[in-house]
Amino acid sequence: MDGYNVAIVGATGAVGTRMIQMLEESVLPIASVKYLASKRSAGKVLKFKNEDVVVEELVPDSFNDVNLALFSAGGGVSKKFAPEAIKRGAVVVDNTSAFRMEEGVPLVVPEVNEKALYEHKGLIANPNCSTIQMVVALEPLRKVYGLKKVIVTTMQAVSGAGNRAIQELHDETKAILNGEEYKPQILPVSGDKKHYQIAFNPLAQIDVFEDDGYSHEEWKMIHETKKIMSDQDLQVTATCVRVPVAVAHSETVWFELEKSGADVAKLQSILKEAPGVVLEDDPKNQIYPQAVNAEGKKDTFVGRIRADNEQANSFHLYCVSDNLLKGAAWNSVQIAERLHALNLMRVPD
Amino acid sequence: MDGYNVAIVGATGAVGTRMIQMLEESVLPIASVKYLASKRSAGKVLKFKNEDVVVEELVPDSFNDVNLALFSAGGGVSKKFAPEAIKRGAVVVDNTSAFRMEEGVPLVVPEVNEKALYEHKGLIANPNCSTIQMVVALEPLRKVYGLKKVIVTTMQAVSGAGNRAIQELHDETKAILNGEEYKPQILPVSGDKKHYQIAFNPLAQIDVFEDDGYSHEEWKMIHETKKIMSDQDLQVTATCVRVPVAVAHSETVWFELEKSGADVAKLQSILKEAPGVVLEDDPKNQIYPQAVNAEGKKDTFVGRIRADNEQANSFHLYCVSDNLLKGAAWNSVQIAERLHALNLMRVPD
Repeated sequence: MDGYNVAIVGATGAVGTRMIQMLEESVLPIASVKYLASKRSAGKVLKFKNEDVVVEELVPDSFNDVNLALFSAGGGVSKKFAPEAIKRGAVVVDNTSAFRMEEGVPLVVPEVNEKALYEHKGLIANPNCSTIQMVVALEPLRKVYGLKKVIVTTMQAVSGAGNRAIQELHDETKAILNGEEYKPQILPVSGDKKHYQIAFNPLAQIDVFEDDGYSHEEWKMIHETKKIMSDQDLQVTATCVRVPVAVAHSETVWFELEKSGADVAKLQSILKEAPGVVLEDDPKNQIYPQAVNAEGKKDTFVGRIRADNEQANSFHLYCVSDNLLKGAAWNSVQIAERLHALNLMRVPD
Repeated sequence: MDGYNVAIVGATGAVGTRMIQMLEESVLPIASVKYLASKRSAGKVLKFKNEDVVVEELVPDSFNDVNLALFSAGGGVSKKFAPEAIKRGAVVVDNTSAFRMEEGVPLVVPEVNEKALYEHKGLIANPNCSTIQMVVALEPLRKVYGLKKVIVTTMQAVSGAGNRAIQELHDETKAILNGEEYKPQILPVSGDKKHYQIAFNPLAQIDVFEDDGYSHEEWKMIHETKKIMSDQDLQVTATCVRVPVAVAHSETVWFELEKSGADVAKLQSILKEAPGVVLEDDPKNQIYPQAVNAEGKKDTFVGRIRADNEQANSFHLYCVSDNLLKGAAWNSVQIAERLHALNLMRVPD
C-alpha cells in the first residue's frame, strides 16, 4: 500500500489542529487526509503539508475508505460515530473519555503499555491528558522498584477545556488588567452551572463532581492509571486544579515505591534514559520543568526529584508536558505509529 | 495606660501596608504609631485612620518609647534591629524568617499555639505564610483525631515576594498579551541567579534550594509546622510552587490522622466551628475556596474535603487564604492582640 487514508474528527479544535501538525511530522505513511467536524465548521479550509484541505461535515459515510480515524470532538460524537468508522473498516484512536474504561478497549500510552495494542478490536482509547504525563514519568521507576501509592496534585492549563477556554483566559486577563468587568462563560466547566474567574485565580474543579467529592478529572487519573498500569492494587489519589496557564500541565507527584534501595541519583539516572522523558533536574542551577519550555514539545519533562525524608521508599517528582501534544494529539498519533509498526492497523474480523 | 506606642518596620512594603490596615481595624489600644523604613522610603506619607504619618528612617533609637514593634522588612533588618527594639523595651513581633527556628523564640499562630506566648522573651516570630493557613486548617482536626502525616502542594501568590513581584506579574502579563518582550528580574527569587517568566507559567521554586533538593520554602513548611504543633514526630513534606496569582495562596493538603473514626462529615462539622476557618465545601453546588474570594479576608477558607479511598484515616483538603493578611500582617497583629489580652505585652526582665 502507498499509505493510510486518515480522518481527523474534530479537526478544527485545539487538539484537532495539533493532530494535523503531529501527522505532518509523523513517520506514518499517509495516502490522504480528511478533516471532519460539525456542520458549523464545515467549509473551513485548513492545511496539510501546505495543501488546502476543506473541512467536511461529519456523517457516517465520511469513513468510507478510511483506514485510520483520530477522534477528538467530545464523548458524544465518539459514541455515535466511532462505531460507524469501525464498521467501515477504520481503526479508531479516540481521544475522548467515551470508551476509556470499557472492558476490552485498550487504553494506551505507548511508553507504558504498548502491548495492550495487540488486544484491540478496532478501537484504542487515548487516556486523559493529566494521566498520560504522570504515567510516562512513573513507569520507568515502577519497572525497577514497583509502585505502591501515588498522590498527585495537578496544575492544569485551560487548553484542556478547548480553544474557547484559551480565549476566555486571554480576554478575561486583559479585562482585569484594564480594570474592566468580564463575565466568565466557559471555565471551570462549560457544561456546569456556575462559571468562575480563572485569570489570576486557581480553580479546584476540572470536570463535574462525583458523589464522593472527587471531580471527574480526579476520578479519571485514579482509574485510568490503574488500567494503563494493569494494577488495580496500585493506590492513586489526586487533586486537580485549573490554573491560569494556556498550554502545558504541571504536576506534583508524591509516590511510594514497593521495593527498597532507590535513592534520588538512581531515580534520576533511570529517568535520564527513559522513553518520552526529558530530565530537567538541577535545582542548584535553577533547572526544573516549566510550562513555557514544554509547550510545543512531545516529551514529558521531569525534575524536582527528592526523597520524602520521613517515609521509606517515598519520593517527590514534578512533571510538565504539553497537554495538547503528549496529553492528546501526539499520544494519539504515536499510537497510530505503533499500530503501523506492529502491523495492527486493521479492524480484526 | 491609654494605649501602646506601635512601630511598623517595613511600613511601605506589601505586608507593611497591610499591617497598618490591620492595626486600624484592631481592638488593640493604640496611643501612637510610627512608620519605619529604609532611607529610600523615608519621607513618604502614609495614613493611619485618616491622619498623615511621615515614614521615618529606621535607626536604633527609633524604638525609644515604643511598646510594640512589628517587623516585616527582611531577615537582615530584623536580625540587626529587633535586638535594638527589645533592648529599649519594645515587644517585637517579627514576620521574617530570622528567628523562627531559634530555640526559646515562640513561633505562633494564635488558633494553634497561643500558649507559647507565655514563654516569650521580648520576641515572637510570625510563621511563614504558606505554613500558617495549613496549620489553621489542620489543627482543629488534629485536636480530635491526632495527625500523623501531611503532604502539601502549594500554589502561592507572587505577593509573597513583595510589591515588586506583583508589579512584575502585572507588567509581564500585559507584555505577553501584547506580544511584547519582557525580561523578568524578580521572580522566582529576586536574590537568585536566574529569573523566569511567571505569567501563565507556574514556577516550582520559592526561595533558594537546599542540598537535599527541597526549596527553603518547603523546608520552612516542614520545620515550622513541627515547631508550631510541638510535634517533632509529625511527618510533613511539601512541594511549593509559585503561580500567576497576585494575592492569596491555594494549597492541596493530603493528611493521615492518627486515630480512626473520622469521616468527611465529621471533619466538615469540626472545621465549621473552628476559629479562623470558613468552611466552603459544597462541590455539587460548585462551592470551594478561591483566591479571589479570600483576598482581603482574615480567614482561612477550607473545602474539597474528601477521603483517600484507599488508605485508612487519610483525607484531602484544599485551603486558601490571603497570604498578606492571615499569612503575615493579620497574624502579626493578632499575636499583638493576644499579647495584650493575656497581659504579656512587655519585655520580661
